[in-house]
Amino acid sequence: MKVTYELIHQDKETGARYGKAIFTDANGNIQEYETPMFMPVGTQATVKTLSPEQVKATKPGIILANTYHLWQRPSAEIVQKAGGLHQFMNWHGPILTDSGGYQVFSLARNKKKDITEEGVHFKSELDGSKLFLTPEKSIEIQNMLDSDIAMSFDECPPASADHQYLKNSIERTIRWAERGKKVHKNSNQSLFGIVQGGPYEDLRRFSAEQTVAMNFDGYSIGGVANDDECKDDMYKAIEYSIPYLPNDKLRYLMGVGEPVDLVESVARGVDIFDCVSPTRLARHGNALIWGIRYTDKNEPKEKRINLKNACFTADFSPIEDDCDCYACKNYTRAYIHHLMKCNETFGATLLSIHNIRFLIRLTEKMREAIKNDSFADFKSTFLA
Amino acid sequence: MKVTYELIHQDKETGARYGKAIFTDANGNIQEYETPMFMPVGTQATVKTLSPEQVKATKPGIILANTYHLWQRPSAEIVQKAGGLHQFMNWHGPILTDSGGYQVFSLARNKKKDITEEGVHFKSELDGSKLFLTPEKSIEIQNMLDSDIAMSFDECPPASADHQYLKNSIERTIRWAERGKKVHKNSNQSLFGIVQGGPYEDLRRFSAEQTVAMNFDGYSIGGVANDDECKDDMYKAIEYSIPYLPNDKLRYLMGVGEPVDLVESVARGVDIFDCVSPTRLARHGNALIWGIRYTDKNEPKEKRINLKNACFTADFSPIEDDCDCYACKNYTRAYIHHLMKCNETFGATLLSIHNIRFLIRLTEKMREAIKNDSFADFKSTFLA
Repeated sequence: MKVTYELIHQDKETGARYGKAIFTDANGNIQEYETPMFMPVGTQATVKTLSPEQVKATKPGIILANTYHLWQRPSAEIVQKAGGLHQFMNWHGPILTDSGGYQVFSLARNKKKDITEEGVHFKSELDGSKLFLTPEKSIEIQNMLDSDIAMSFDECPPASADHQYLKNSIERTIRWAERGKKVHKNSNQSLFGIVQGGPYEDLRRFSAEQTVAMNFDGYSIGGVANDDECKDDMYKAIEYSIPYLPNDKLRYLMGVGEPVDLVESVARGVDIFDCVSPTRLARHGNALIWGIRYTDKNEPKEKRINLKNACFTADFSPIEDDCDCYACKNYTRAYIHHLMKCNETFGATLLSIHNIRFLIRLTEKMREAIKNDSFADFKSTFLA
Repeated sequence: MKVTYELIHQDKETGARYGKAIFTDANGNIQEYETPMFMPVGTQATVKTLSPEQVKATKPGIILANTYHLWQRPSAEIVQKAGGLHQFMNWHGPILTDSGGYQVFSLARNKKKDITEEGVHFKSELDGSKLFLTPEKSIEIQNMLDSDIAMSFDECPPASADHQYLKNSIERTIRWAERGKKVHKNSNQSLFGIVQGGPYEDLRRFSAEQTVAMNFDGYSIGGVANDDECKDDMYKAIEYSIPYLPNDKLRYLMGVGEPVDLVESVARGVDIFDCVSPTRLARHGNALIWGIRYTDKNEPKEKRINLKNACFTADFSPIEDDCDCYACKNYTRAYIHHLMKCNETFGATLLSIHNIRFLIRLTEKMREAIKNDSFADFKSTFLA
């Protein structure tokens, strides 16, 4: 399917946008999904511990899959022979694939890699075999995976990179985006460009303007989700990029899933998000709880409880009283505590359902607030 | 709920019985399930890797839960406070709990345990703490768990036990059954007796007659599922027990889940079965396949394939073409192979669904054959 974006309403006080991602298949059939949207991540063609039906019950729009991982296992050829990713994993809603760039740089963070104009030489973290990923190869793989949205191959520079390094990097990333666009062959797949540039206003502007000039189907803002990057830099990176992105295309902030960041980013005009955090937190026993806590350094973070804690042994309330997810409707904290203590995977399943639904509920509430021109109120209440 | 059994039709040539397990709750509401029946096992109040909805889609009747495990974690008190096992684990069909006896003897197989007239002293395999399980304690726990069928506490002697040991053991088990029955307090729960006696005709008869004299709600045949016991001994144990069991009560062969054993046991008049094998096989990548293979020693065993094998990398057929399970209807061997190679739990989920449904389909086909008086034909075809 190909995607277009319809901006329905912009909040009066902030940059927050309510709109629709409209997917059209080769036969003209349409699927519509509201934005702001949180996309659950199915790294290896499965959202960890969940069936597609369990994912669907959280009311997502697009889900994500990882080009790098699927390239390595089971390979683009196998997915193609299976009839594409939708068929392979039994997911009939829209799928976005990343370019593999983030994984090449993050999984091989401590390993030798060789970035050339042509592409990136690196070693597989699975078996040490030598791999070479180029912009053309990334697009070719994504064409074969047959996702609905493909991403351009970009360099994800470390947060420590200086202005000069970043300037060279984004210039190369722009050349890579051009090369990828040139070989993009799947007429049933949209292609997004990626804005990089770290925390620098001039670089973000340059990257955004050059990328937009290539007329992609949508734009993402990258390089903001490094663990060691502070939130102010993230928000600045968004603010420096957004003014140069067109109003009639989707804006995607990659790898961001903290509730506070979703709210702050929507306020700045971002439409869609993805993050592995809801399922990763779940596997460690954590459930997201409505609201925000403040750290010792007065930094806002997500509220959460760890169901492994002994205090939940005899707690027969749901994770959250007013949550409408399958886990909260049918199970108690005591039961999930029991499952986590016994290493039963159904515990991670229930927490994954809750955490994904939590972020999707947050986007639903933001949509309502934008429609009612009350987003600023919503934001200050949520962050209180 | 309390259970009764209705014998609807007995096969003309064999001892195979088609019937119904009828569950009646305190308000007179009825749930009926056909037999022969295979019961999926939810050891720790969850059928491993599955949601209750996924279990339900395999069309089971009763499911099992383990008294020993739930006594240790989360404790009978917690389950009772949660409103009983049905409420705790969100399973609203019938539940059978074992007595804990099998686990005391099997989990502590290599550890020191002290069997006295009063009960069994042993150490927890979780934390080494000293535990003492008695017939009264087992029933008290099961009353609190509020399962629909409770089992009497029995000794499970090793397969190597001689006639003299077994004679003492079954006499004690009979005294334990009497003590358990005396303290059984849950008027909304049925209580089954257990026939032991190893491979000895006189002991099986003695155990069956003495146990039946106590008038339990149903009877199980125990001590047949030891790994080192040969199939002939299992079938003999059934043949030596069945003639002394009443026609109007359920007959339950504990811990048996090999397809060949289900067929051979149904032929001898057994109604219900349980086994962890379908979910355990699944977690190791195995899928049951219709029919029987013969080992080098010409022993019949279940047919299976291991989806981890490289030969399934590009196999885009379902696990079994004519299986109606969720896994076979929606996924390929190639996808399940991929999930297993990546250690994604959804692989074990799909294989568990298939394997459980496989055994339940086998019972469905046996029911049809019995109704048509063609069970002997079915059996010889299946075992060919």
